[in-house]
Amino acid sequence: MREPQLLVAALVLLAATSSLVYAKVVEYEWVVDYAWAAPDCVEKQVISINGEFPGPNIRSVAGDTVRVHVINRMPTEAVVIHWHGMLQTGTPWEDGAAYVSQCPIDPEDEYTYDFVTENAGTYFWHGHYGMQRAAGFYGQLIVDPPENFTEPFKYDGEHSIVLNDWWHASMIDQQLGLFSVPFRWVREPQSLLIEGRGRYNCSLMAGGRACNATRESCKLHVMPVEAGKTYRLRIASVASLGSFNFILEGHNFTVVEADGHYVEPVTMSDIDVYSGESYSVLFTANADCSRNYWAGFNVRGRDPKTPTGLAVLQYVNTSGEPSTCAPVSPRWNDYAYSVAKARQYLARKEFIVPLPQRGPDRQIFLLNTQNRVNGRLKWALNNVSFVPTATPALAALKYNITVEAHGGLSSATPPDYFQEGYDIMKPPPYPETVQGSGVYELKGDQVVDIILQNACSLTAKVSEVHPWHLHGHDFWILGYGDGVFNASKDYASLNYYNPPLRNTAPLFPFGWTVLRFVTDNPGVWPFHCHIESHFHMGMGVIFAESVDKLPEVPTDTMGCGAIKFYRSP
Amino acid sequence: MREPQLLVAALVLLAATSSLVYAKVVEYEWVVDYAWAAPDCVEKQVISINGEFPGPNIRSVAGDTVRVHVINRMPTEAVVIHWHGMLQTGTPWEDGAAYVSQCPIDPEDEYTYDFVTENAGTYFWHGHYGMQRAAGFYGQLIVDPPENFTEPFKYDGEHSIVLNDWWHASMIDQQLGLFSVPFRWVREPQSLLIEGRGRYNCSLMAGGRACNATRESCKLHVMPVEAGKTYRLRIASVASLGSFNFILEGHNFTVVEADGHYVEPVTMSDIDVYSGESYSVLFTANADCSRNYWAGFNVRGRDPKTPTGLAVLQYVNTSGEPSTCAPVSPRWNDYAYSVAKARQYLARKEFIVPLPQRGPDRQIFLLNTQNRVNGRLKWALNNVSFVPTATPALAALKYNITVEAHGGLSSATPPDYFQEGYDIMKPPPYPETVQGSGVYELKGDQVVDIILQNACSLTAKVSEVHPWHLHGHDFWILGYGDGVFNASKDYASLNYYNPPLRNTAPLFPFGWTVLRFVTDNPGVWPFHCHIESHFHMGMGVIFAESVDKLPEVPTDTMGCGAIKFYRSP
Repeated sequence: MREPQLLVAALVLLAATSSLVYAKVVEYEWVVDYAWAAPDCVEKQVISINGEFPGPNIRSVAGDTVRVHVINRMPTEAVVIHWHGMLQTGTPWEDGAAYVSQCPIDPEDEYTYDFVTENAGTYFWHGHYGMQRAAGFYGQLIVDPPENFTEPFKYDGEHSIVLNDWWHASMIDQQLGLFSVPFRWVREPQSLLIEGRGRYNCSLMAGGRACNATRESCKLHVMPVEAGKTYRLRIASVASLGSFNFILEGHNFTVVEADGHYVEPVTMSDIDVYSGESYSVLFTANADCSRNYWAGFNVRGRDPKTPTGLAVLQYVNTSGEPSTCAPVSPRWNDYAYSVAKARQYLARKEFIVPLPQRGPDRQIFLLNTQNRVNGRLKWALNNVSFVPTATPALAALKYNITVEAHGGLSSATPPDYFQEGYDIMKPPPYPETVQGSGVYELKGDQVVDIILQNACSLTAKVSEVHPWHLHGHDFWILGYGDGVFNASKDYASLNYYNPPLRNTAPLFPFGWTVLRFVTDNPGVWPFHCHIESHFHMGMGVIFAESVDKLPEVPTDTMGCGAIKFYRSP
Repeated sequence: MREPQLLVAALVLLAATSSLVYAKVVEYEWVVDYAWAAPDCVEKQVISINGEFPGPNIRSVAGDTVRVHVINRMPTEAVVIHWHGMLQTGTPWEDGAAYVSQCPIDPEDEYTYDFVTENAGTYFWHGHYGMQRAAGFYGQLIVDPPENFTEPFKYDGEHSIVLNDWWHASMIDQQLGLFSVPFRWVREPQSLLIEGRGRYNCSLMAGGRACNATRESCKLHVMPVEAGKTYRLRIASVASLGSFNFILEGHNFTVVEADGHYVEPVTMSDIDVYSGESYSVLFTANADCSRNYWAGFNVRGRDPKTPTGLAVLQYVNTSGEPSTCAPVSPRWNDYAYSVAKARQYLARKEFIVPLPQRGPDRQIFLLNTQNRVNGRLKWALNNVSFVPTATPALAALKYNITVEAHGGLSSATPPDYFQEGYDIMKPPPYPETVQGSGVYELKGDQVVDIILQNACSLTAKVSEVHPWHLHGHDFWILGYGDGVFNASKDYASLNYYNPPLRNTAPLFPFGWTVLRFVTDNPGVWPFHCHIESHFHMGMGVIFAESVDKLPEVPTDTMGCGAIKFYRSP
């Protein structure tokens, strides 16, 4: 086994759209295996890369080729890696969604991801198979702008953190609980982690598992700053369950980037971060420089039962952790506050990507409901709860593999609409739903609107936040609203001038969110709630875009499910 | 999802060697998924079939076709099923050894095992991928003789039990511990199970996990008997770690079958059962019929730390469990006692299968050592510790897939001998060993002798029992001995007249065992220590037999590793 290392960083000439620029190949060898980790002082098994948890960070320049050679050493579990926010234009098989873009990488097998980082910004990578992300399988992916590009703001230094919620139960126990009858809820997380570090109160531990507060691995993450300097802080969330609210004690900050796009600067004292989102905020270290401060985040959208996730903003490297209380976030269910915050993000003036000059060619309304299938709790869209197949949809569609055995694609097309008059304020009158693996086929060069419609869960008066993430595209968020979306009225209220481009958008309780994108990227793209357990319980759909324009699919992404019977002519 | 059921039991005409007999197809649909189980009152996750733990039992008549349609519903874990003791003549791809006979069955995919049960006897099935057997993935497979066949003994009733050792740690935590540096031993089992039932002392449980002694699932297994009648008791062991000694309190019994072959009747008060072995014993219910008795087994070959595994031999269905103490086995390290017992098994007179009329065409000496690879504890044969590849050897050899990338087969051939003069009484002088995936290629119609040579482990004065199991063949056990096998002397001491045919044979501490078989079954066959953790740590080899005579391999066993690039001409 070769040592984990940065293998090559060769300079190659790349013809960019406007001019010739230097683009590199950044190449890594990543060995995926189980490892022990104690991110909150409590030891459990995680999925690691080269023994590291969280996994290694990737840093490249827009236009660079990232090449990650993955070797799977887990004895019985296959693996994929999704490069969250990468558009994968022309390389849809590198998207890393299990059984959508590729067959998972089997134990002792290998696969090399090879893609171009198209847009500068703050991104991350994570597992996209079962609930492997919840097993700690994630890391940062930061793309810098090319050298000759001047960003619309300045800073002296940079920090980058990934937020996460954390359970002591194993990933497979969590998974089984979600599929159990009666339902076994994962419950609220035991800890909240910043850069893979938190701190569980060992006195709460009922024997058995080793909780050791002196472990090096659960020392809080430290972000050193120099008084008077301005910092770019990159924040992303890979949360399995919670929405978060992040605070820098004693400092306001200005949001300048969201999901890889510049936004009109907005100054805040706290920021909501939904699972799947990323932000850059600027702050100046202008507080009393004789002490340190907390960086902290709390659960939002669910009554928090977990202590604040903490890191140290360090002015003084000898003074240790602040003696102040952990930062307090706004009331967890003040959704009006959250919606107002979400509406503040607008495309930055000089960087507005204009909407197409016409309205939508297709509208897909997606009703978000909680349901049951044979007693199991599920989430569904338009009364279909998604289940993965054993056959990667990309190759199956490209090569017209129509067999339904061996996890072949379902020929059933899911609906673009839900029943008129559905009462979103009440639990579903018929909780039982159906499972499906059908895909939405999208033609090329179309303007597609997605109208996400939230509704009451199976519990009366409860509706949850769902952060929706699209692969292969950024979308414009045209607007958020309360109640049932009324096309004739609400279309007039949307922002057609400077809506932000994002890859993830929250859908608020009992509300709606309208997204728009153009089908300019042939591929097969999941669109799903980024809450790990919700997607695992069926909360997603698959868009098969411009199937007729798909390039040849590399053989090493195939071999599983129905595609193993395919022989090229 | 269809209900679990016996789908079809159609009568078909089968041309047997001597006469036309009726042979059936017994057909099952098995959905593999995780489930909660509390076999010893402590709940944990297991791998179940149709929700059952242990999995369903198969019963067929010799000559029947068994057809098991497997659907995998585990979210990220593939699966295979090995039919332990089935010879798979002509169907080597149905052997169910991951990455040897087939690609594992992926999540949401399906595979139909289809094979003929050739010989009557007591067998079982289990997972053969990673340590899935240790996750509770096993069940019985009993093959009755054809109706017109008279067995050489009589009985009035029958019971059948599988013995197992059981841990509260998850299978993946056990696996990772075995691969950790420093080594984390699985330790002695928490419980010993008979037919998936045991009883942990909940007062020993340090909080946290639910131990509930009143659970229905941990009521001990009960075997009703009628006074005066004679019973056939089938006993098999799927132990992950231990060797066992089994006792029927108050009853002697007579061993009549071992691994599907009749043996000369031997009467015993207790029987050693090694992992991978199966026996039929006859006993008469002739004890005081006013009370019940224990059936019990203890760990052997390791200083036992686990209470006796118990079931109830029930004369009186109202009197419940016996009030007597649990049965006591002979001293755990009285190996002379065990070797003497093993030597008692001889082929039954009327059923002796004569040895070939010539000596071995090939001798493979396999030195069993404990070693290290990069700090990890390993087991090795002739200084090679086996690691699985990602490519099923059967298809790779058939289609000459020589690529070593993507988990292709290694071209390195492992050695038939070990270093002369190796001191088996001392820990290995050079503990570091190498890992390998090479196969032993065996020509057809050869007489092959395997000389298993035990040695000292890394700990001075310690040598462990290893029960060796061969796929695709029964072998004659020609003999057991102490110390280093000395061909010129010891070959003369072997039993060439009525050695037992078995599929599993113990190798005793600091001793040797000689096995013989004829290469009359083209296929690719694992030969390995049946202790789950030992095989996982490299204690096995692969025999590729008569590769030139392999039939075409079904496509649905392929698709993974290097074979996914194969396209038939």
